[in-house]
Amino acid sequence: MRCEVLAVGTELLLGQIVDTNSAWIGEELARAGIETYRHVRVGDNQARIVDSMRSLLASSDALIVCGGLGPTPDDVTREAIAEVMNVDLHRDPEIVEFIRALFGSRGREMSGNNERQADVPEGATVIPNPIGTAPGLRCPIGHKVVYAVPGVPYEMQLMMTEHVLPDLLERSGERATIRSRTLKTWGVAESTLAEMIGERVDVQTNPTIAFLARGIEGIAVRVTAKAASEAGAQELLEAEEVALRAILGDLVFAADDETMESVVLGLLRERGLTLGIAESLTGGLVGARICNVPGASDVFRGAVVSYSEGVKRSVLGVTAATQVSEECARQMAEGARKALDADVGLSTTGVAGPDPMDGEPPGVVYFGMQIGDAPAEAVRVQLPGDRERVRQFSAISLLSLLRTRLAAIPPDSPTLPPGG
Amino acid sequence: MRCEVLAVGTELLLGQIVDTNSAWIGEELARAGIETYRHVRVGDNQARIVDSMRSLLASSDALIVCGGLGPTPDDVTREAIAEVMNVDLHRDPEIVEFIRALFGSRGREMSGNNERQADVPEGATVIPNPIGTAPGLRCPIGHKVVYAVPGVPYEMQLMMTEHVLPDLLERSGERATIRSRTLKTWGVAESTLAEMIGERVDVQTNPTIAFLARGIEGIAVRVTAKAASEAGAQELLEAEEVALRAILGDLVFAADDETMESVVLGLLRERGLTLGIAESLTGGLVGARICNVPGASDVFRGAVVSYSEGVKRSVLGVTAATQVSEECARQMAEGARKALDADVGLSTTGVAGPDPMDGEPPGVVYFGMQIGDAPAEAVRVQLPGDRERVRQFSAISLLSLLRTRLAAIPPDSPTLPPGG
Repeated sequence: MRCEVLAVGTELLLGQIVDTNSAWIGEELARAGIETYRHVRVGDNQARIVDSMRSLLASSDALIVCGGLGPTPDDVTREAIAEVMNVDLHRDPEIVEFIRALFGSRGREMSGNNERQADVPEGATVIPNPIGTAPGLRCPIGHKVVYAVPGVPYEMQLMMTEHVLPDLLERSGERATIRSRTLKTWGVAESTLAEMIGERVDVQTNPTIAFLARGIEGIAVRVTAKAASEAGAQELLEAEEVALRAILGDLVFAADDETMESVVLGLLRERGLTLGIAESLTGGLVGARICNVPGASDVFRGAVVSYSEGVKRSVLGVTAATQVSEECARQMAEGARKALDADVGLSTTGVAGPDPMDGEPPGVVYFGMQIGDAPAEAVRVQLPGDRERVRQFSAISLLSLLRTRLAAIPPDSPTLPPGG
Repeated sequence: MRCEVLAVGTELLLGQIVDTNSAWIGEELARAGIETYRHVRVGDNQARIVDSMRSLLASSDALIVCGGLGPTPDDVTREAIAEVMNVDLHRDPEIVEFIRALFGSRGREMSGNNERQADVPEGATVIPNPIGTAPGLRCPIGHKVVYAVPGVPYEMQLMMTEHVLPDLLERSGERATIRSRTLKTWGVAESTLAEMIGERVDVQTNPTIAFLARGIEGIAVRVTAKAASEAGAQELLEAEEVALRAILGDLVFAADDETMESVVLGLLRERGLTLGIAESLTGGLVGARICNVPGASDVFRGAVVSYSEGVKRSVLGVTAATQVSEECARQMAEGARKALDADVGLSTTGVAGPDPMDGEPPGVVYFGMQIGDAPAEAVRVQLPGDRERVRQFSAISLLSLLRTRLAAIPPDSPTLPPGG
């Protein structure tokens, strides 16, 4: 069973709206075990909608057309479907009344335009839209089927969940359950991952394994399993996860919805440690990431964004001669612990660019870290990219650094080991 | 001249990544006056990539293929293009060396896989990638052309701007100069904008006017003018900008590359004021936005992320009984001025959710502001959305609040007016 997706709307081609509907539909189809090979976007042009429908239907069993069901003259999906079905449109009086009532309930007059939304191709059945004026359409074409759903995400999602997906599953007679798990890696090139687990990626058909580049967030390894039952799918996933973790080990920092910051907060919590941060280069990015984790407040004390040298000295007690140096990074970490009364102190200082600073080129960043009363340590890195990239990359690099250091401390350790 | 877009990646079909690249490319093509009729997404499957390339090329002059240039075995865009061109791939030793050097500069070993990224179809020319390992490709096919660009947005955008778009314009023989200007509005609904300038949007053909929804960043009004010369285009743009600003007035907070934070920094600089921030709810987001503006350091002193109550009291001197209150917001703003030795103090405190706090529901946020020695003021708002949205929305709301307050202060005012 294969179902393709056609998104209709000139605003999609012009980039005025990002086509999130196709992504949502694609995810739901995959979850339902229905294959999808091609997603197409066309503008509000009947001839091109017809062409795309024909070419997509030629190589698949079903097609979901999303958008172009509005009341305005440029909404021509209904006409396009009638042309492909080679039938006429008839106006359904019940739908006209439903739309009129909907307008009435909102204290508005129905415009003549809206009657067009009651036009139904001969032989098609109506998919009710309880929350909008645009009904959906289920249109059999030979042994294939076309579903028309509105472009309004919430209305589309309701119709997909309650009508289209169940109908597709019934047609496919498919009973398989598809589940996936994502293992997140950071600080390793995709090519290196491919060499470590490439064989499993190439050979396996169930579960399948794919790499997902996540930009500064690293590279995710997605495992997707298909089985007759939920339990069977989970069993396949768990077996594969064990095998992959055995190979990738510490490179995997999180799974599924976990993030670098949620993992770091968890490690701190397990060890009963609180966190304080001094941010210069990152200007608050590290704190902002951490605060996005619900419940962060039991571990995260706060941060000092010491963007000016004066604040570094007055609030953090930095005495280092230069702001971009190991000494400054160490003193900032120490100052963060003191000023924020935290067990663990972190710091970032460096050159975001575009200009050099303290004799260092853009991209040079120093990370400082002090855990307990152990001596503060500092790490120097040279990061690629522009100002924004250097800062974003610095934030996750610092969290990753803390993660690996914390992982080396047993949760039940009575005292903290010396740093360095 | 028509150019279509083919996005390659199974993760796009499965909805694990939303295809924002095609939207970005579509917007740039429209801006350049190049038509685009169909955008297609296919998975990492050579046969289907080849089919889609052929069908898209059949009805257009040019095609941009985005993605599938990575080092792993499932990246087969290079092979697909060679098949469509009906030529062999040859490995370019210069590119191999460039990639090896790139790895070296990051202190990493290049894996054998990466050499695949140096494969070039016979007759294609390489589009350099200064910031990544995947070079782009310019592939003539008869009198048509296929461009291959990486799926990493940042790398793709650089190649599009510097190589693909100029090359397309040259091929199109387009002599007209197309320029656009974006007026950014914030805090007003699209329907309201449409009522204010809808007529100009509907009637005008040159310059054209379009609304671009920018999420929490507001709604942009993009003016695009076409003329025989640069000067002519600029003249049209300026005339339209004057007309639009006359209608929209203060709703326009920035133009083109300006951001809310760059505008606020400019207003502070003109008035010789320095800024200090106390962030609770936003956790560093406001500071992070401000630090992303080059040269922020001459105005921005820093921030205190007082996520824990203890830090509010010890570092900022807050005495308010509850952390989510007008009094706390005012005291945080005052504390930020003192602790960071700044002229202007800002603060955020509130409930990001999911749980209520201090008897306030999620979404309730207090903003504090103190300008000079005037009494600190506080504003209470109730924001929609989830945790992340509430925090992001709070950051820009606070900056917008400061912008309007500063705009009311003449740049040359000897003394600061009372707040409140």
